[in-house]
Order: sequence, then C-alpha cells, then structure tokens
Amino acid sequence: MAKNKKYVYAFEEGNKDMKEILGGKGANLAEMKNLGINVPPGFTISTEACALYYEVGKKINAEVKKQTDIKLAELEKKMGKKLGDANDPLLVSVRSGAFASMPGMMDTILNLGLNDKSVVGLSKVTNNPRFAWDSYRRLIQMFGNVVMDMGHGDFEHILESVKDTKGAKYDTDLTADDLKEIVTKYKAKIKAVKGIEFPQEPIKQMYLAINAVFNSWNNYRAIRYREINSIKGLIGTAVNIQAMVFGNLGDDSGTGVCFTRNPSTGEAKFYGEYLMNAQGEDVVAGIRTPLSVATLAKANPKIYKELVGICNKVEKHYKDMQDMEFTIERGVLYILQARNGKRTAAASVKIAVDLVKEKLISLETALLRIDPNQLNQLLHKQLDPIAVSKARVIAQGLPASPGAAVGEVVFTASEAFAKAKSGLDVILVRTETSPEDIDGMHSSKGILTARGGMTSHAAVVARGMGTCCVAGCADISIDEKAKTLTIKSQGIVIKEGEFISLDGSTGKVYEGKLGTQDASLLGNFGVLMNWSDKFRKIGVRTNADTPHDAEVARKFGAEGIGLCRTEHMFFEGARIKAVREMILAGDLEARKKALAKLYPYQKGDFAGLFEAMDGLAVTIRLLDAPLHEFLPKEKKDIEELSKEMKVDVKTLEAKIEDLHEFNPMLGHRGCRLAITYPEIYDMQAMAIIDAAIEVKKNKKVKSVKPEIMIPIVATTKEFSILKDRIVKIVEAKIKESKIKIEYKIGTMIEVPRAALIADKIVEAGAEFFSFGTNDLTQMGAGLSRDDAGKFLKEYVNQDIFAYDPFEVLDQEGIGQLIKIAIKKGRSVKKDLKVGICGEHGGEPKTVEFCHREGLNYVSCSPFRVPIARLAGAQAVVREMLNKKGKK
Amino acid sequence: MAKNKKYVYAFEEGNKDMKEILGGKGANLAEMKNLGINVPPGFTISTEACALYYEVGKKINAEVKKQTDIKLAELEKKMGKKLGDANDPLLVSVRSGAFASMPGMMDTILNLGLNDKSVVGLSKVTNNPRFAWDSYRRLIQMFGNVVMDMGHGDFEHILESVKDTKGAKYDTDLTADDLKEIVTKYKAKIKAVKGIEFPQEPIKQMYLAINAVFNSWNNYRAIRYREINSIKGLIGTAVNIQAMVFGNLGDDSGTGVCFTRNPSTGEAKFYGEYLMNAQGEDVVAGIRTPLSVATLAKANPKIYKELVGICNKVEKHYKDMQDMEFTIERGVLYILQARNGKRTAAASVKIAVDLVKEKLISLETALLRIDPNQLNQLLHKQLDPIAVSKARVIAQGLPASPGAAVGEVVFTASEAFAKAKSGLDVILVRTETSPEDIDGMHSSKGILTARGGMTSHAAVVARGMGTCCVAGCADISIDEKAKTLTIKSQGIVIKEGEFISLDGSTGKVYEGKLGTQDASLLGNFGVLMNWSDKFRKIGVRTNADTPHDAEVARKFGAEGIGLCRTEHMFFEGARIKAVREMILAGDLEARKKALAKLYPYQKGDFAGLFEAMDGLAVTIRLLDAPLHEFLPKEKKDIEELSKEMKVDVKTLEAKIEDLHEFNPMLGHRGCRLAITYPEIYDMQAMAIIDAAIEVKKNKKVKSVKPEIMIPIVATTKEFSILKDRIVKIVEAKIKESKIKIEYKIGTMIEVPRAALIADKIVEAGAEFFSFGTNDLTQMGAGLSRDDAGKFLKEYVNQDIFAYDPFEVLDQEGIGQLIKIAIKKGRSVKKDLKVGICGEHGGEPKTVEFCHREGLNYVSCSPFRVPIARLAGAQAVVREMLNKKGKK
Repeated sequence: MAKNKKYVYAFEEGNKDMKEILGGKGANLAEMKNLGINVPPGFTISTEACALYYEVGKKINAEVKKQTDIKLAELEKKMGKKLGDANDPLLVSVRSGAFASMPGMMDTILNLGLNDKSVVGLSKVTNNPRFAWDSYRRLIQMFGNVVMDMGHGDFEHILESVKDTKGAKYDTDLTADDLKEIVTKYKAKIKAVKGIEFPQEPIKQMYLAINAVFNSWNNYRAIRYREINSIKGLIGTAVNIQAMVFGNLGDDSGTGVCFTRNPSTGEAKFYGEYLMNAQGEDVVAGIRTPLSVATLAKANPKIYKELVGICNKVEKHYKDMQDMEFTIERGVLYILQARNGKRTAAASVKIAVDLVKEKLISLETALLRIDPNQLNQLLHKQLDPIAVSKARVIAQGLPASPGAAVGEVVFTASEAFAKAKSGLDVILVRTETSPEDIDGMHSSKGILTARGGMTSHAAVVARGMGTCCVAGCADISIDEKAKTLTIKSQGIVIKEGEFISLDGSTGKVYEGKLGTQDASLLGNFGVLMNWSDKFRKIGVRTNADTPHDAEVARKFGAEGIGLCRTEHMFFEGARIKAVREMILAGDLEARKKALAKLYPYQKGDFAGLFEAMDGLAVTIRLLDAPLHEFLPKEKKDIEELSKEMKVDVKTLEAKIEDLHEFNPMLGHRGCRLAITYPEIYDMQAMAIIDAAIEVKKNKKVKSVKPEIMIPIVATTKEFSILKDRIVKIVEAKIKESKIKIEYKIGTMIEVPRAALIADKIVEAGAEFFSFGTNDLTQMGAGLSRDDAGKFLKEYVNQDIFAYDPFEVLDQEGIGQLIKIAIKKGRSVKKDLKVGICGEHGGEPKTVEFCHREGLNYVSCSPFRVPIARLAGAQAVVREMLNKKGKK
Repeated sequence: MAKNKKYVYAFEEGNKDMKEILGGKGANLAEMKNLGINVPPGFTISTEACALYYEVGKKINAEVKKQTDIKLAELEKKMGKKLGDANDPLLVSVRSGAFASMPGMMDTILNLGLNDKSVVGLSKVTNNPRFAWDSYRRLIQMFGNVVMDMGHGDFEHILESVKDTKGAKYDTDLTADDLKEIVTKYKAKIKAVKGIEFPQEPIKQMYLAINAVFNSWNNYRAIRYREINSIKGLIGTAVNIQAMVFGNLGDDSGTGVCFTRNPSTGEAKFYGEYLMNAQGEDVVAGIRTPLSVATLAKANPKIYKELVGICNKVEKHYKDMQDMEFTIERGVLYILQARNGKRTAAASVKIAVDLVKEKLISLETALLRIDPNQLNQLLHKQLDPIAVSKARVIAQGLPASPGAAVGEVVFTASEAFAKAKSGLDVILVRTETSPEDIDGMHSSKGILTARGGMTSHAAVVARGMGTCCVAGCADISIDEKAKTLTIKSQGIVIKEGEFISLDGSTGKVYEGKLGTQDASLLGNFGVLMNWSDKFRKIGVRTNADTPHDAEVARKFGAEGIGLCRTEHMFFEGARIKAVREMILAGDLEARKKALAKLYPYQKGDFAGLFEAMDGLAVTIRLLDAPLHEFLPKEKKDIEELSKEMKVDVKTLEAKIEDLHEFNPMLGHRGCRLAITYPEIYDMQAMAIIDAAIEVKKNKKVKSVKPEIMIPIVATTKEFSILKDRIVKIVEAKIKESKIKIEYKIGTMIEVPRAALIADKIVEAGAEFFSFGTNDLTQMGAGLSRDDAGKFLKEYVNQDIFAYDPFEVLDQEGIGQLIKIAIKKGRSVKKDLKVGICGEHGGEPKTVEFCHREGLNYVSCSPFRVPIARLAGAQAVVREMLNKKGKK
C-alpha cells in the first residue's frame, strides 16, 4: 500500500497497454476513449487495488476508497447527475475485468443507483415508468444474485407467478404496475431469505458491488478456470464503473450491433442490425425484428455517418474486423464495446487476405490471424446456412468426419452400393460399421452410426475417405428388418428412402433434404495457401490408401504420401477371400498360393498410387493389422464363411480362438507377423517394386519413389531381418528389369523401445523414420484408444492432460520419445529423413512441435493437408517473432 | 601363411592358456600332459591352420600337411605302431575343438585307421574278432555320416535288419560274423549312394577327417550357433588327433568314470563307476552293472592309488571338482578327459563352501561358482531322487512353480478346500484356474492345469504362494462331472482320490505316491547366504501379499516388503461380494457403503503384514486391477451372482459389457480408477494408517514403516491429486491418534511416460520409485504378456531378443527407461529411494543391472530372495574384478 499510488483511473487516463493494471476491459474502454470515441464515461479500479483488498483481509483500503470517491465525483460532474439522485439519477454499471478474459468470474450489474426514490425520478425524467420500474427490477435481481448471494430461483419464481396472474406471455407484456408489484415482492424475498433489506443508499450499492467483484476473483469457478487454463501470475481483477446510457428513451434513441465487415462472408462492407427506442434485450427477445444498419443511412444520416466513421477508425486502429455495440441516447451516439469480431472460416480467410491487400497488416500477421483448424470448414461441402436456420434438428451425434451430406436413408452397405450405382444420393445408417461395409461406405454421401466414438471404424474410415460422418448418435435406433430408423427421444420414425441431411462438422442430423454449398479451394483460400508455402519449411504429405485419396490430397497441396496403409487394401471384395485362405493355410506352400492371388491386386494398388503421385515420394507401410481382424466374429458370419471356404465351422472357430488376443494393441501384428510369416512382406515388396518398374517402363510417370516402411519395429533384428529379405527381392527385380528405381526402406517409430534404440536401428540400415504417434501414445502413455474414452474426457477436465493426447500430441511425454529418437537416429545418419504419420500430423500444435524438432515432414489425412500447410507457416512466423523478441 | 610358423602341436607342447590356437579340448589335453598325467598321446592341428584352410580356398596347406605328417610319425614312434598297420594297427580318434565349446560342430570319429586288412590284424592282436569288427563297423558308420555325408537312416536300417534276421535284441547280441556282414553291407551302401568306396588308406581317412572338421566350422549349425551365442572373433577350429586306447582287451583292461567329489551331495569323497574288460558303450548299454570305483581299491590297489592320486592332482590344479574318464589298457592307466563336473545345487553349494574351507579358492571365487538360479532347487521340497528313478512319468507340462507335491487328485477348489481341511494331501487339477479358486489353491499341495503358460493365473498365483505347480499340460483332459483325469496320449484314466506326484521344477507328472525330501536352508546354504550378504550392497525385499508369504520371505532373508498387491486381497470369501457391491453401486454413497465393508478386512491384512515384518519397510500398492476382473465372465456365474446380489441378469450383463475393455492392459485401472473413484484409495489409505497405528499402539512391533505406492501413474497430476488426498487422510489419523508413524508415498514407474517425466513426479512429491518392470516391458516393448507367448519363443530362437524379456530384463531397451527415470528422479532428489518389484527382481542378470544402476533394492517372490542375495553379491564381486582388470 502506498498513499501516493494511483489505484483508480478515469477511462481517459488509461490505454490498451495497461491491461495488467486495468484489466482487458478497462484498457479497451480507455483505448477507445483515447481514440476520441464517445464511450459513456467511467473509471477503473485497478487490479492492484484488488491485490491490496486481499492483503488487508478482504477490505477496501482507505486510499482506494478515497480515490474512488474522487473519480465518482468527477463522473457525476461530467454527466451532470448524481448517483441515485431522486430526481434525475446517474445510473452506473459495475463489471469485473482481469488481464485475461475469465468467464468464470462475476457477471455485470446494471442500473446501479436505482432505489425506491430514484426509480420515481427516472420515471419522470424518461417519461417511461415501465422502463424505470423494469430497470429497478433488473437491478434488484442482479444485485440479489451476484452481491447478496440469492438463488436464481428465488426471483424467477416471483416473476413467473406474476406473469401467470396477469396473463402475460413475455416479460414485455408486463405493465409498470405489474413491475412495481414484482419489485415489492423481490425486496420482501430478500428480507425473508437474507434477513436484511435491499440497500437503498446508492453509494452503499456501489461499494457492495465492488466488494463482490473483488471476492469473485477467488471464488471456486474462477480459481478452477485459472487452473484449467494455466493462467498464472495475475494479482487480481479490476472493476469498471461506467455511466449507463439508454436506447429506449424515445424515438431519438436506439441500440444496435455492427460489424466492420461481414462476419459470414468477410465482405468489406459495413454490416449490422439496430432497433430504435429499444434496449439490447429487446433484440434478443425477438418480438421486434431488427433493421439492417444500412437503413440507418436514410433514417438518420448524421448518426449513420458518425457510426461508420467510428467503425472505420476503430478497425484501422486494431487492424482487424470489429464487432461493436452502440447506443443512441436522445440523439447522441455512444459506443459501448468494440472487439475483434467472431467470423466464419471463409470470412476469416477473406478478411486476412483483404487486410494485407489494404496494407493494414503484414503477411506474417495475416497467417497468424487464422486458426488452422477452422480451415476444415472450407474444405468440405457445407449445408446451406439459410436452409439450416429453418431446418429441424432431429438428432445430435459426434462430428466424426466433416462435410455435409444429403440423401436417402439406407440400412445396409449393399443397398447403399446398389442405389448409388443407380445414381441416387444415399446416407448409410448403421448401428456400427465393420470392414465388410467398405464398398457401401464408399458409395454413400454420408454415414450415420448409432454407436462408436471419434475413432470408431466408421469415423476413421470416413475421415480417410473424406466422407461426411456423424457417429455415436445414441438417440437413434435402427431396425434393419423393418428398414426404419427411430429417433428415440422424439419418437420420429424415418423409413428407407426418406431424406435426411447430416452436418459432419457439428454432428447434427436434420430432417429432409437441405441445400448444400461446395467447398472452394481457389480465391482467397488459394492465396492464403500460397503465402503459407512461402514461409513453411516443414514438408506436408498425406495419408492416403487409394488413388482417389491421393488425388484429393494433391489438390490440397500434399507433397507426397507419408502413409499408405496396406491393410485396408486387404478387405475389399475378392481380396478378403484370399487373405482368409492365407490365414487358414496349413503350410508355407498353401500360404504362398493364397498370397499369389493377392499379388496382382496389390501391384495394381501401388501402380495407381504411383501414377496419382507422379514422381512424389510414396511411403507404403507393409501389413500392420493382426490376422484376427480379417476373420469374422459373429456366429452367423462364421457359418457363412464356413460354407464359402468349405472349411468346417469348428476348424474356423478354433482358428479364430487361436488368433484371439487379450491385448490386440500389443499383439502379433506388423513386423512380428512378418517374422513368423515372411512370405507376406515378400509378396508386398514384390508388388511394390513390380508396380514401380511397370509405371516407369510404361512412362506413365516421370519418376517413382517408393519408400517401404516396416511397422511395429521394436528391435534392430526385426528391422534387419526383414530389410535384408526386401532388399534381396527388390534388387533382383531391378536387375532383371534393367530399370533403375530409387527406393528407401525405413521404419515406423511407434513402439517406445524403438525410439530408445533409434541409433541402432539406423545402424541396421533404416533410411527413414516415421513416427506413428497414435501407437506411440497408446504404448508410451499406456492408453488404449479404444477404451480410454471412458476416462480421458474427465482427465482433460481435471487438467491431468492439457488436451486429449490422441488429438493433440502429448509433447511433454510422448514428445520426449520423439526427441530421443531423432537425436539418436541423426547421431548415426546426420541427414536421416524423419516424418510423422499419426493422426496428430494434421494438428496445428503438433505441426509446430514437429517443425521445432526438425522433422522433415508431417503426413495427415487429405483434408488436413491445408491445415498442416498453414500451421507449418505459423510455426516459422512465430519462431521469427520469438527470435526478434529475444534480440 | 608362413613357412616357419608352427601349425601342429604335440600335446606336450601346449598348455591350458593356449586355447585360442589349440582350442579348448586341445589345450586341456596339453595341460594334463604337462601335469604328468598319462593321457594317450596325440597332437593338435591349430585353429590357425583352419583359418589358412579357408584362406587358400578350402585346402589343407602344404606346410600344415608337412607338420602333420611329422607329428603323426612321432606319434607312431611313441606308440610303437603304424596307423592302420595290417598286423598291429595304430588307431586314432579325430575331434574338433574350438576356443569355445560348440555343440553345433562335428562329432568325434573313433577307430580311424581300420580297414579291411587292419581289422584282421586287430582281431589277432586283441584276440577279440568281435571287438575288432564292431570297431570297424562303428568307424564306417561315423565316417560315413560325418565325412561322407551319408544319412543316419542308411546305416541304421542295415543294422536293424541284420539284428532282426539274427534275432538279436541288443547290438551286443551280434557275433563277429554278424558284424562282418554288416560291414560288407555298409560299404556296399556307401558305394551305392555316393558312387565311391569307403577309403581303405588310413592316411587318406585321416586327411578326409581333418577336412571334414575344418568344413564343419562353417556349416549351417555352427554358424547359427555362433550367432545365437554371440561368439565372435574366432578364426577357426582346431583338430585333435589322439591314439585310441581300449579297455576291452582282457581282464587287465577296463574303463570308467569318476568324480573327485560326489556330484549329488558334494561330499568330499572319491566317487565313480567302472567295468573291467569293457568299453564306454558297455556302460551305457546297461547290460552289465558297473562297479563302484571304491571296489577298485581291492581289485587293483596299484591302479586305484594311481587314479586317486591323479584325481587329487587334477582337482587341486583346476581348483574345482573334476569329472574324469579313464581307461586301463593292459594294466596301464590312461586319462581320457578331465573337466569341471556337473553337479546338483546342493553339491554346488557344499563344494564351493568346502573348497573355501580347504583354502583352495577365495570367498569371491566361491560366490561366482554358483549359478543363482540353481538355488531354486534347494528352497523347495523335492521328490526323492531314488523314488523318481523308478517312477512312471505320465505327463509333461511346464515347470510353472518349483517344488514337489504328492497327493490325491481333486477337481474343484471347494473339494480341495474340504479335503485339505480334513487333513488330506490334495493336488488340484483344473483345465485352468481363475481367481475364485484361490482358497482351493491355497489348500492344495500342488496344482496341475491343462492350459495356460508360465504366466497363467495358476502359475503366477502358485509361485506367489510357493506352491508347486505344473501348468499347460496339454496331454491331459479333465472331466469335472465324471471326476476323472485322462492322459490322452497314454489312455490312462485317474479318478478323484487317486494319487499323483508333481515335480514343479521339471514339469513332470508321476503316477502314484512318491517320497519327498525337505528343503534345507541351514548348513552350507546358510554359510553361502552369509558370505553373499558380506559382499552384497543392493537390498533384497520380497513381493508378499499375506503374512504367511512375508514370514517365508523373512526366513529366506528378505529385508522388507517391496510389493504387496492389494487386489489379491479383494478376491477372498466375503470380500468379493463387497467389491461387487461397490462396482454395481449407483452413486458415491452406495460405493462408500460397500467400501466400508472392505475396510476392516483391509486393515486386518495390513496389520498382519506389519506384524510379520516387525519394523521392516512394507510397500503397499493400492488397488491396481481393473474393475471387470472382479465380475464373472461365464453366463452360469453371472446368473448365480444375479441371484446372490439380487440384481437382474440384464443389469449385470450391461455392467460387464460397460466395463469390457479391448486392451485391458492399457485400461481403466490403478490410479486411473482412483481418479474416477477416489473413495477406493481413501478407504485403502485409511486401512493402512489405522493398521499401522494399531500395531504400534498395541506394541506388537518395535516400529512400523508403511510405504504407500500408487500404480499406473503416467502423469504428475495423477500422482499429486491422489497423494494430496492420502496425505490428508493419513495426517488426520496421526494427529487424532497422537501416534507418530513414519510413512512414505511413492509411485510405481511402469508406464514409459512416467519414466520420461520422473523428475516432475518427484517434484510433485513422490518419495520413492518402484519399477514395475512387467508392465514397463509390456508397454515399452509393445508386448502383451498374455499373448506374446505365441511368438516370443521364436523371437528368442532367432536372437531378436537375447532372452525372453519377461524373464530377463531387456536392459538394452527397457533398461534405458529405468536409467532415464533414475537420472531424472535423482536430479531432483539426490537420495530418492528406488527399487524394482517386477518378476525380474529375482533374476540374477537383472539384479546385477539393478546393482550397477544404483537401485536401492530389488523385490521378488519369497523363493527368489536367496537367488537375489547371491546375485547381488556376485554383482559386487564382478565389479571388483572388472576394476582390478582395468588397473
């Protein structure tokens, strides 16, 4: 405490750089004041005063009180009114405002200064008793809740019962007398519950409110909020006390909201809505329809011009699109708030690009302005927003794969396939999907499942295909026989052939056939991507298993394939039969025979990918899945297979039992399977090199760069044994064909042990690493992705993990394994190529980490490629800024 | 190649330090020669000659040949005979012998020098045509196999058919003429198969044999053997050529085997067997019963005295018990071989202790002489070896838990319990055991299962209890209803109540009731343990869940409990009911109510352990198991539980389905469960501290040192959240009781991530670490212990892992996580207490690693405590030797 220290600042005494002592809101109001904008006057009690409040045992210090009294007197002088004056009262709002925005803290109190006397004065001055009594009612309710700790129900109950008695539907149907009655009842309730009266002295009201704001700094919600958001080192909250202005004092008054640019499209055109003789609440209540702010130009050209002028000024000042609240009180325009406006992804991109063109911001700033994750919206077909606003949401599931889908409901994969073939748009609705559904999923516009999470089969496959998917929609039940879908909570029944619409970005399911909008990858989006690539240093590849995916990814800017999962290729049509033959084969010869049937398919797959990528690197991961994934689980399917394969059910069941694993995640798969049955990888290696030779021979591509990747390696020997076999096959083929193929053999780093012995794996001949961060997270943190959903959400809530480690890479833990592996790997081979191909590869924070740690590339699903490109650029820009900061 | 270089050494020209050029066998023969022992003369062609053989393209170099011819001439001179002489032939043996013993290489060829002429000479000289022709037959057979690459079947077939024709049961029933017929047929077979004659020139025979030995150095078996055993840097094998001597040339000839001490008991008494007028094979054939070597003292005092003298000399020379082969040829004693004798564990200990007492070896040497794993034999009851030699083995399973058991067969846990209560010895025979069988397992003398591996429920629990167990005995099938056990391959049926005997150290199952011998922990064993403790620096604790286990472990020298698994305590009797109530509870209150029922049991458990350990540290791991382990899986059991708990089957099934996990290993267990349901650990913490206060208050112990351990920690927050709760409970209890309790709260390090953030976990307050190397191996290497059996054996065979990583700690991989965790942990808290409590804790190589890495203690099952004590001492001795070596 210091007598000479300044604790209370009039708005005009502060500026935007004083957030630490004025809080965010206070500094912002001060900044606007300094811009010469007509903000209702007021003052801010500093965060230092809050700290002092706690130091002296939760008491407002005398010096603070003294300075507050002075500022209040100045405010009264400015406004020509006295706080709570019986004839023409000054009313104020009291708001908290810390350095960081903290929704967990106290709400606003409005209309402070009203009491039994000044309410009458206000009635007279405004000539609007209803307004005066409603304002008083609101004050008592807010004050009662926030300052006097009354329950919300206490007041709502009274309000509702009076409305019932009076036959009022909306609050606005209540008369001044009704509101007077409510005020009386509110006061009596406070007396009854708390044993004290609602304070009538305006100055007492104000100090009690200031106390309440200071106390709210350390309430449970606020403390938890700071904990969860790792907000540290703050000393307290500021308190903003500001004169109230009213938009409902007659036809020369009004209130509105405006944006300096269109927040939906980003168009550089003034945009907003207002109502004359109204308060903000009236807009929300939806009884009167607000007018477009453009009409204000005719209705009140002077005010309109002033507003546009202010908006331009503020936007130029903050160099970003502003969302502003304004009130006109008896012909005088006040700005109540200005802040960077929320916007759609499309608007975000357009505004950033436009601001650069307008030379308001730099390229670097523009890149940092856009949340990479938001780009997702732009890359998929969207439901028409106008149609959406009128449509009926019938169910809510998980937003498993973004995009929009509109189509007829079908209930089996085969129907989906058949109907799609005949040219219909279909949505496949299943309790859950399984690998056999692949063809049907491919044919559908969208997929809806009743069960399964964000990483269920449906979700993973749909994301891979870029197909819209809503998963885990628990409210639906499916009757496959009756061919109906029931929305349980609403009792709606939808039959096969009826239309529904899905929004895969929100998880919402709509009734009927909504309109859609296409994705646009050109225009501003294209500009942004080009800018990103100028800065970006880390490569961006894609995870793609089919030529189609590869083509989509290239359109999005992928610079190669970082992960082609070959097991998906084993499921389709006739292939699964050959795979099953291989599994059931009694000896090596029979296995080889079955594998020979798979070889032409595999070769075709790889040739297709090589052509689609035309000279870019294609990383092919050899079979990773355990064998049991290729056999059916249900009795019915086993019986069917028994007939088809002519193998008796008992033998099949015995094989399935034999292959069963307690922890398949840690099971007999990937290179382990290849150590037991090396002929599988032999076939794949042969298919890869033959495809490469063929496409090069046929001159379908300029060049071809296969990178063969061995999964689940945990020891050097696994790698060297398999590499030696592959090299032998590949070299023989190259020699025979006389066609030179550049190829590499590398390994996934997905078992923690592999990261720890990375140097030895490079010594054993690994030419590249690719981090499989999904499995690395599962094993490194001991979490099963299929199971951990049960507690991970709670873990994130309790801040045990900052983020779901399957969405955002756990840099603290798993990140260490990556660092260790890179350091060790490059200690042997300085230029070792290192990438990442887990689902994290398209997550912006992870991309930044990968850039920082010197990875050569990230690889992600096609639709995440643009996100990774932007995130890669942002990483560079932030690094530049950090370096500047350090200098 | 160097003309002046010596490639061939007469035995008397070498010594035991020349193993690199003479090979192990050659150096040993030379050493004996130098000791003045009558070894049949001979010479060694050096390993350098072998290297030269390969250098010049698989040809015997001229210089080598020259030197060999000279040495052969010298040998002929010494023996007064010529190789293959038609009248009185010198016969020789040819043997390979590298630096390291390599069973993968060529076998011995005996009787080289015989041909169609010299066989007649030999007949006459020995006056024993049968002997001569049999020797010739053997030569052709060995030579054919080893040198001429004939199949074994080629000769066996002829031998058998002649025996059939002649009505001969044993080879010894064949006459000289029969053998002559066989020789003729053998030679014809060689001619037919190989197109060449069996070589008649003795010198050609010898050089072909030398060639074969050199070639065998690089045959597939030998190369694989060197790879598997990491034998590197050797240049080749030596060849030993030695004059044959015969013990069957009359009554003044004989042959025998002797040990300088008793290999079964270790008694310092000359021991052995011999036969006069016999060859080694005669002993093996078992037609004549060999005599005790003691009888030789009377039969031939001169030879006996000479033999005893040699034995004493050789033992003193090698400072270890010797296993020697001797032959008396016409009254002359020859020693053919002397090597350190194989011995039982008891003999091993006694001999080591005696040799120290006799001042032949130092304490340090004695400690290194004993394989710690062998001690296992001494700690358990054994089947009487004499009874075993006469008993019938009816089945072979896995040696899952050592010891011997003799008892009546029962087929259910409840029968086991009931019969044991009435005083009978029972063996519980199950297809596989489950947690419900615990009581019955406890009551049984031994456990036999048809299914499950070394880490199956039966095996793990039995080892924990110290009960003999043979698991995974695939040849038996059990009919629980009929109460019979069938040995499938032999068709034997055993009924309930009939006796069988188990050897848990070999996995053998015997018919009937065999005698047993008790374990002995005193005497020489006690001396050895005392010596070990003198050297040992690392602490040895035990994994014990019951006061009984704790007492056993203390008898074995445990210095505390390193791991008490509390989940086992949840299964017994009435407790499982309360646990299930807790799981099915709908809300916190109901859960607390169920937990309150468990509290008194838990408190009693802990009090019992504290008393048993009387002031030693007791580390208690809080509940680790996932909840689904406590619910039944079979329909029948679910229905039963439904009745018992009065919860309908559907609800039960839904709960079981809800708790089901795809990868339980990575599931919702340990501290994760406690984050969701903190009341579980609250109850356990309360039970621990209340038990500690009680035993201290009642003065049942001098002091009490509970160490509370939190399992499956992967993040700092998990630890700090749970630690804070526990501290609050414990401190309140201490304050209330006014009894001071020293306690610690620490964590398992078993999730790789925990090792990587070990510093932060210590900052969060962890007072000790205990490595759970089972789980750390599972997660770190991505191996499921329940599944990996399918391929791990093959992995070890292919040397992908040097040892099964669940038996011997994978120091290269998982060891790094341990090192990282210790380094990081101690960077924050220098004196951080660190232990290991996985099953590896009692494995000698792992104990040495733990000593080297500065762990404070290892903890292992009670029966491994002595092993760990010895291994800990050996680690110190080896470290001392290494330091000396470096100086």
